[in-house]
Amino acid sequence: MINREDEVIRTLTRYYTPHPRLPVPSGADDATMITEIPGKALVLSVDAHMEGIHFERSLLALGDVGYRALAAALSDLAAMGARPITFLVNLEVPLTLSLKEISDIYEGFKPLMKRFCISPSGGNITRSERIGLVITVVGETSREGYIPREVRAGDLLAVSGDLGRSMGGLYLLQNRSYEEKLQEEDAQALIEKFLQPVPKIHEMERLLIEFRPRGGMDLSDGLGIDAGRLARMNQVDLVFYEDRLPIHPATHALAEVMQLPPSTLATSSGEEYEILLAIDPSDRVHLEKLEGWTIVGEARASFEPRAVLKRADGSEVDISQRGYDHLMESFQRELPGNRET
Amino acid sequence: MINREDEVIRTLTRYYTPHPRLPVPSGADDATMITEIPGKALVLSVDAHMEGIHFERSLLALGDVGYRALAAALSDLAAMGARPITFLVNLEVPLTLSLKEISDIYEGFKPLMKRFCISPSGGNITRSERIGLVITVVGETSREGYIPREVRAGDLLAVSGDLGRSMGGLYLLQNRSYEEKLQEEDAQALIEKFLQPVPKIHEMERLLIEFRPRGGMDLSDGLGIDAGRLARMNQVDLVFYEDRLPIHPATHALAEVMQLPPSTLATSSGEEYEILLAIDPSDRVHLEKLEGWTIVGEARASFEPRAVLKRADGSEVDISQRGYDHLMESFQRELPGNRET
Repeated sequence: MINREDEVIRTLTRYYTPHPRLPVPSGADDATMITEIPGKALVLSVDAHMEGIHFERSLLALGDVGYRALAAALSDLAAMGARPITFLVNLEVPLTLSLKEISDIYEGFKPLMKRFCISPSGGNITRSERIGLVITVVGETSREGYIPREVRAGDLLAVSGDLGRSMGGLYLLQNRSYEEKLQEEDAQALIEKFLQPVPKIHEMERLLIEFRPRGGMDLSDGLGIDAGRLARMNQVDLVFYEDRLPIHPATHALAEVMQLPPSTLATSSGEEYEILLAIDPSDRVHLEKLEGWTIVGEARASFEPRAVLKRADGSEVDISQRGYDHLMESFQRELPGNRET
Repeated sequence: MINREDEVIRTLTRYYTPHPRLPVPSGADDATMITEIPGKALVLSVDAHMEGIHFERSLLALGDVGYRALAAALSDLAAMGARPITFLVNLEVPLTLSLKEISDIYEGFKPLMKRFCISPSGGNITRSERIGLVITVVGETSREGYIPREVRAGDLLAVSGDLGRSMGGLYLLQNRSYEEKLQEEDAQALIEKFLQPVPKIHEMERLLIEFRPRGGMDLSDGLGIDAGRLARMNQVDLVFYEDRLPIHPATHALAEVMQLPPSTLATSSGEEYEILLAIDPSDRVHLEKLEGWTIVGEARASFEPRAVLKRADGSEVDISQRGYDHLMESFQRELPGNRET
């Protein structure tokens, strides 16, 4: 006789594949064991994806839920310049979910498992009112390779990929009427970035062969709010030139349909999972050798640190609150008048 | 200007204390970095404590919630013979919780932080309908020191501490009328084990100086259900002698009040966080040198592996379902007639 919890766990441990750094096969035990190597450092990060907060089931298949949760967690490793080794999943599932549906969430991990040669190696399952994934990712870097959240006045700011497309994809899924006004390939490009963002693990590995950036972070809550945090940590203004922001043609097309400046999408869009880097100006030549990176601005000394959008006419807008604060909605009432946007 | 999420994070990162293996101070970044050492292995485990499933707020102060969640996670490390290094917390909090109340949860970590010289070094916070903690603990062991979930027929079974007291404490908190029928010190002993169980980290470190057990696990869902799992994994029966189970006088007293056999409490009680070990019979002399361990039974070959309680009269009862299956309640409807107890 077997109980249900064990049955679910046995099904999910099938997603484990052998890994040279994990000496004990998963599923045989609750815990994950990783052999250590001198000169290296393990990097751990925890990320949560909760139904009703980070996603709505009406817009996503269960596989998408799994994919996006894992992508978000891996993006934290990319920002540190770390290569993923494995991940652990705490899964909350409602009573109504079948074993097949639980497996569907794990099926969503597969494209990322393949791309980065990793698999889940442990975890926990518990019932809940709604679906929730808390993923702990484990990566590795050399102690010196680690990229801190550091910026100095005078540094250049660079960003990977393009910005705004993820929010565009979300708008499209929420409002199908926009789709009729767009080319099919533009609609696809928007939705793809929202549903299947690719964490910039390989891009960062490639970049670290060329040079070591001063600092960096991944963009998960929006360029404005994320850069605002980085600005405050380092007592600098981060200035982004509106006409330099890398914006995909599909994002431009949607912005036109929505009658919005494209830069509003680019600075507010969460879940982009692009990397924002601060680099010494002398490293500009190294960065320019690489594909997929754009220099978008610079850091300057400041007594009132914030993220700023600089328009072609020279005017500046504070964008430090553009994006998504997951606790904002809840605590806004307690902080009357404390927010501008 | 600062948003609320940042304010909460800043408050919680104050609980971090420097650690020789964590080269980057926490709070400066999302991720935790741990320097590696040759010959060692890192051990990771994830554990969840959710309101309404693992605990009810009516019975616990917020500090107790934090304490018990961390104790449960650390107990997994004890079972592996690993020494804790740090932990990461994914905290789900309802809209109604104040910053003070969120800190109260972290205050509950403190006795365990002190005892094991660890502190939180990262995490994540998200809003939710109810309180939930998903804790990732990180520990270290030598590759050889690692204790698998292994048992062989003929092995002796040993258990740390005493069994049944935690469930007794829960019954007392749920039913204060029992308390009048008990000595005050007995009531205290029961409630203390329920509210402040101590993971057996030090006990396992001490034991590993003497000898290496064949295998082991921690008892979190109940001796019956946990040992039933271990039995199935290893194709053996695990036989526990009723008169050898280590039962605290307070548990005996409560069992009398409740008119239950004390062994029912001892075999069904979850959240004991004691360690069940399988040891080679030749290691009995080593174990007997140590305080706080009891030999309670043995493993025997079996075609229908299960956990068994053996009475003084020689009769045997299957206890493989005694305890708590966190998914049971939810899926019971799907498995009619599939459970005996």
